[in-house]
Amino acid sequence: MEESLPIEMHREIKGKIETHVRVPLDTPYDVSLAYIPGVAETCLEIKANRNKSFSMTRRWNTVAVVSNGTSVLELGDIGPAASLPLLEGKAAVLKTFGGVDAVPVCVDCKDAAALSGIIASLEFGYSGFLLEGISAPECYEVERELKARCAVPVYNDSREGTAVAVLAALKNALKLAGKTLGEAKTVISGCGAAGTAVAEMLLKAGVRDIVMCDKNGVLLERRCAGNPELQELFAKTNPRGIRGKIKTALKGADVFIGLSAANVITAEDVATMAEKPVIFAMANPIPEIMAENAQKGGAFIYATGRSDRPNQISSIFVFPGLLRGTLDAKAKEINDEMLFAAADALAGAVSEDELSVENILPFPVDPESRQILCGRIADAVKAAAVSSGASTQGGYVPTVSR
Amino acid sequence: MEESLPIEMHREIKGKIETHVRVPLDTPYDVSLAYIPGVAETCLEIKANRNKSFSMTRRWNTVAVVSNGTSVLELGDIGPAASLPLLEGKAAVLKTFGGVDAVPVCVDCKDAAALSGIIASLEFGYSGFLLEGISAPECYEVERELKARCAVPVYNDSREGTAVAVLAALKNALKLAGKTLGEAKTVISGCGAAGTAVAEMLLKAGVRDIVMCDKNGVLLERRCAGNPELQELFAKTNPRGIRGKIKTALKGADVFIGLSAANVITAEDVATMAEKPVIFAMANPIPEIMAENAQKGGAFIYATGRSDRPNQISSIFVFPGLLRGTLDAKAKEINDEMLFAAADALAGAVSEDELSVENILPFPVDPESRQILCGRIADAVKAAAVSSGASTQGGYVPTVSR
Repeated sequence: MEESLPIEMHREIKGKIETHVRVPLDTPYDVSLAYIPGVAETCLEIKANRNKSFSMTRRWNTVAVVSNGTSVLELGDIGPAASLPLLEGKAAVLKTFGGVDAVPVCVDCKDAAALSGIIASLEFGYSGFLLEGISAPECYEVERELKARCAVPVYNDSREGTAVAVLAALKNALKLAGKTLGEAKTVISGCGAAGTAVAEMLLKAGVRDIVMCDKNGVLLERRCAGNPELQELFAKTNPRGIRGKIKTALKGADVFIGLSAANVITAEDVATMAEKPVIFAMANPIPEIMAENAQKGGAFIYATGRSDRPNQISSIFVFPGLLRGTLDAKAKEINDEMLFAAADALAGAVSEDELSVENILPFPVDPESRQILCGRIADAVKAAAVSSGASTQGGYVPTVSR
Repeated sequence: MEESLPIEMHREIKGKIETHVRVPLDTPYDVSLAYIPGVAETCLEIKANRNKSFSMTRRWNTVAVVSNGTSVLELGDIGPAASLPLLEGKAAVLKTFGGVDAVPVCVDCKDAAALSGIIASLEFGYSGFLLEGISAPECYEVERELKARCAVPVYNDSREGTAVAVLAALKNALKLAGKTLGEAKTVISGCGAAGTAVAEMLLKAGVRDIVMCDKNGVLLERRCAGNPELQELFAKTNPRGIRGKIKTALKGADVFIGLSAANVITAEDVATMAEKPVIFAMANPIPEIMAENAQKGGAFIYATGRSDRPNQISSIFVFPGLLRGTLDAKAKEINDEMLFAAADALAGAVSEDELSVENILPFPVDPESRQILCGRIADAVKAAAVSSGASTQGGYVPTVSR
């Protein structure tokens, strides 16, 4: 019975978000102000200066939460309509935790070039795009294209959101283990959208020894063919030239990060790792190794993506705070400085006193604490946007019209 | 000062609509229900049966209000960003008057085929499309394409909304003049998106003698070249083969309907019309003939699109009622029966007692009366959807996947 509750809730509520009207429309005068003919002058002001759409409409606080449904959660290619419950949930979280107005946009298109074109054509209604559940490698091209074509930030929560959360968790985990990012030999299982984004962020954060693995074992150059993103990553990883199965890579490793599939590693594998091994087993719903097995193998820290256990690694506090800060800064992009600032704020939200092997990330359980956490991330991101030059404050850079 | 009020309001409020969250997200349990992992089961149910997106998400009550900004109000091609104030206003009216959740979608695309493709790809998020401010003749192709490709209704407020309001006004005007639709010689000034839609609807409603005019006078066959919509209309109008200026067409006419430009006809022209001439001068902001001149020419009934005068002809009560009824019927399209039902409900909302030459259409000024009017239209539209077979009630017809 307990298990059928979420679906019953969705059946009963028939929509987790709705449109709320912010202007009175009581009298004919009210209507003439907010509708015809009152809008005409505002339309003309925006025609003369497109950037005024940010100050005279809802655009300043609105992002599109976009998916084509090709890689939603652990469910695979479920199609655009089936992505709606997740997009609505994301929009509800964005508004409740971060005060961001979010609009679900599900697009029936699998081709990367066509999808980029469709999303880019919608730019003028939003202050940013949050991409979600678009399969790899298409999502790489979509992100690249949108970043090149749009004057508003593009953020992929499955990638950058996960990477920020993992980096924050890893910083605190290594602090407890008495190790540094620079010396942590790291094995990543999963070369998809999330795994590659995590690897890229960890490299930028100072991790020097990352070995990428997929279901066939350590990533080989020939398996990167036709995937420029993966080829680039291959060149920057595996400095010791390890070959073979993932268990070979794990020998002497300090950190295992799984963004792949159920039961990929064993207790015996963990036992071969370096002292105080850190295990992030984030496959959903069944992780790469269960908690009991990780402990049996001597895991120092064990974390998953699940909400029913300690040490949940999730983007749920990242994207509301990060986008709030981005909108507050009127940022034209979300750059590395802003992502690092979000990770630092998230990691720093656990005080020295609270930090423990079962508490590496903040887990606020009441509405107020959550808003405080997201506000803390937002402030850090805004400051980073300003200092890195991403903030436009006074006005957006004009977009090239297509 | 009075004149700068609407723009000040838009500057201050910074958005006339916002996202409202309908689920509690207070506890970790709440979040697990409405977000991850709770959404997964619902996503899978919709994957298995796409039509469940109507019952398990906000889709059942949500329409997209779409424009590319190429022909907004009387302002011309102002671009997609500048259409936002109008789209937001439309969304606010839809929710307040009709309880419909509407989402502004502004698309940066002028090519009809590409625009159709973009809008069609967004279908699975909505129960219908309200098109607005797309220039002719592109809008004809966009409507045709979308109706062919989408399983949800497509409605162009600049066209069908205007046509419904004009038909309702004309019915009551002719009742007062003691004439019938079948015998009313009608001159329409304006062969654009609205003028052609009005002509088509009046023909279907039984008007037999319509003469279409544009700025060059009575429409000639050679001026319809390259515009199939206009060619088709040309073949069905001007049964007496009138040629020349609009003043020639007006001689002996019963009805003038202007959807064109300022000061197209004169008091002298009106004086040459049949007894009890009916003048709908709907160009905005300056009508085809001012009230004083129409009266000087002997107009029996004078109406405009302006809200500051009696007899305003506007779609403002049409689209909220029509779309409410369409959603209530789970209709797969908005057909002629539904449009006629809306026109009849609108015309019938003026009681015999209230009907007068200065009161041909209802003009409710308080929130409750407006909701009653829109509810009356909605009920009539829903009934017409059911009797005409447009209602799917139990479930939408499955869409062909692209």
